[in-house]
Amino acid sequence: MKLNSIIVKKFGGTSVGSIERIEAVAERMIKDIQAGQKIVVVASAMSGETNRLVALGNQIDPNYRGLAYDMLVASGEQVSIALLAIAFEKRGYRAKPLLAYQLGIETDNLYSKARIHKIKTEVIENLLRENVIPVVAGFQGVDENMNITTLGRGGSDTTAVALAAALGAPDCEIYTDVPKVFTADPRLVPKAKEVDKLSFEEMMEMASLGSKVLHIRSVEIGAKHNVRIHVRSTFETREGTWIVPEGEIMENPVVSSVTHDPNTVVIKLNPVPAGTDFLAELFEKLAARGVSIDIITQSQSEHGQRLAFSVTVEDLPLTNKVLDEVLFSQKVERITMDKMAKISVIGVGMRNHPGVAARFFQVLAQQGIPVHLVTTSEIKISAVIDSDRMKDAANALHSVFDLDSGSN
Amino acid sequence: MKLNSIIVKKFGGTSVGSIERIEAVAERMIKDIQAGQKIVVVASAMSGETNRLVALGNQIDPNYRGLAYDMLVASGEQVSIALLAIAFEKRGYRAKPLLAYQLGIETDNLYSKARIHKIKTEVIENLLRENVIPVVAGFQGVDENMNITTLGRGGSDTTAVALAAALGAPDCEIYTDVPKVFTADPRLVPKAKEVDKLSFEEMMEMASLGSKVLHIRSVEIGAKHNVRIHVRSTFETREGTWIVPEGEIMENPVVSSVTHDPNTVVIKLNPVPAGTDFLAELFEKLAARGVSIDIITQSQSEHGQRLAFSVTVEDLPLTNKVLDEVLFSQKVERITMDKMAKISVIGVGMRNHPGVAARFFQVLAQQGIPVHLVTTSEIKISAVIDSDRMKDAANALHSVFDLDSGSN
Repeated sequence: MKLNSIIVKKFGGTSVGSIERIEAVAERMIKDIQAGQKIVVVASAMSGETNRLVALGNQIDPNYRGLAYDMLVASGEQVSIALLAIAFEKRGYRAKPLLAYQLGIETDNLYSKARIHKIKTEVIENLLRENVIPVVAGFQGVDENMNITTLGRGGSDTTAVALAAALGAPDCEIYTDVPKVFTADPRLVPKAKEVDKLSFEEMMEMASLGSKVLHIRSVEIGAKHNVRIHVRSTFETREGTWIVPEGEIMENPVVSSVTHDPNTVVIKLNPVPAGTDFLAELFEKLAARGVSIDIITQSQSEHGQRLAFSVTVEDLPLTNKVLDEVLFSQKVERITMDKMAKISVIGVGMRNHPGVAARFFQVLAQQGIPVHLVTTSEIKISAVIDSDRMKDAANALHSVFDLDSGSN
Repeated sequence: MKLNSIIVKKFGGTSVGSIERIEAVAERMIKDIQAGQKIVVVASAMSGETNRLVALGNQIDPNYRGLAYDMLVASGEQVSIALLAIAFEKRGYRAKPLLAYQLGIETDNLYSKARIHKIKTEVIENLLRENVIPVVAGFQGVDENMNITTLGRGGSDTTAVALAAALGAPDCEIYTDVPKVFTADPRLVPKAKEVDKLSFEEMMEMASLGSKVLHIRSVEIGAKHNVRIHVRSTFETREGTWIVPEGEIMENPVVSSVTHDPNTVVIKLNPVPAGTDFLAELFEKLAARGVSIDIITQSQSEHGQRLAFSVTVEDLPLTNKVLDEVLFSQKVERITMDKMAKISVIGVGMRNHPGVAARFFQVLAQQGIPVHLVTTSEIKISAVIDSDRMKDAANALHSVFDLDSGSN
């Protein structure tokens, strides 16, 4: 068996959202098998299921996160892979549903945000040799004590790409409910258009900046292990968007996409307790709980240093808990601004085109949109703005950077 | 730590049927812990959940049973034990939800009807030593290849009693939605009354004859390993019914209960193909698929041997499949009578009281109820009758054997 003939195919929640859809996925996969493909299927939970499980847990304790929570939310994938396997068996194809403990998807034990350390491939390789279709539970792993962990929402993408990398497969197909990646979210930016190819780097920025298309770790792993990711629709057969090494794209636009993230919260502290120890302690403790701080700015006020940073709405409770600890008995003004959004433009072409930042701020200024926090990298510019201006900002930026459909 | 201070407590589907009930179970268990008990919790899936999962699978293929099906239906317990653990943690008690693969509940690989071979106790003993509450998924095991298996509907009882036996615990508490075991199902027999004690043997017969109170394997294991089973209500604190060795019961009534089972099908074959090979083949093939034949009668007809036997409605599809195989191309009349019920009287006191069978048939005759099949053992008499006469038969037998409340 040539290992590089394997294609890992991942199906998201809407793709397996009903019995009819699960059967349609099986039918489609069987066509691929009949066309000579060696396939490995990875599936998410049926759409709505993970939310249902999260809600059950939160009814008991919305603050609890840990081993039991991960076991709870991981059960959704167990259901969908079992159903997929039954759908294959019904059609005369042998299939085996596989949980993380059976496959050996080893992660750290940072529950709800676990990272994959290693995937064993023997089980899958043996099944493929015996013409059994491996149907793998996405989203889950096991820590060194064989406890179930989960990779964070959207983590099934990461399971799929990591599995492709471990198997030495050149491509990984991510089946979803949109036919392509768009230059912006079409619900927010009506003139958004489809993209044929994006570089890993661009997709990584998009994922980290609020695009829900791919789990960011999956793109990182794809880039690192050179697994090309093909994002395509479960409901159409045409090609979708390829995420590939930058060198494979002939000409990069200056800006390839505009992203937005309405789940942003800005926290301001004034004054920051003196010394660098405080900041180190704060950031260490946040990191230990898996909270990643996004944009940070520090400035001088009459009382000392002033600190502002943004986190996701989801991480706000944990962030506040950590702040309560580190600020304990200190006189620090703490302001939480929770109606914030982050708007960003991304493009590897920026590297060779100066002046993108100038145009970016010009547009926001023209629209009368105040900027609260800013950050830039070589290939992106992000600003935190009021969330009620997010739509205006996204459309104006999309237009100014020549992304509107009809323009080229 | 004295191991015999451990009490295994099992909670059925209605006991964990909602978030409120799960929290109530945690509260009640904490009181037991505060009273000095070392507890191990076993839980079923939330009520309705297993049915929901079965229905999902059946929508794809009602005939498929196997590895994927067991993985599917086992997911319900994963949810309930995770939620229970979160409820304990919220109250400041450390708890660890445990799946079969983590605990080492080893079974054969007869999917959907697996039998426990062995339970490892190290994991639980270590947790108890560290004052962590083990919360064990009922109903599931793993085969020698670490695939999930299930023990049959009601199998969580068996998980609990087997665990108690493995841990050397003298008692196992089965929490359910009724306060005691009754002499008959009160919905069918309004004069049914509560029982304080039953022998293992009586309970085994009851379980095998349609009583849903306990999974039969759990009683077998209790009897074999001398684990007394205490069936009691989750919603009341008073004592329930104890299932104990026969010697512990001072005076046994002739009949201790009347049971009924409306899920009975009678199959008649005429003539049976000549030779003993046919019957051996038929029963072997049924056993291999986990179908147990209940009552069997053979008689002479003008064409040869006539065979009648009963199976559960649930096993009818598999039974027909096997019959299609073994009767292939043979001219045999096959009649399926599917509106049948089995009615039984049980009591260890029967051993010392002749004439019970006579009274049994007298009552049915007086009621004008035809008997299709009969079987007896030392401590029970069963008859298959038309299901529309089940209620009349149950009430008449209950009365004639002095079980009606008010009588003694």
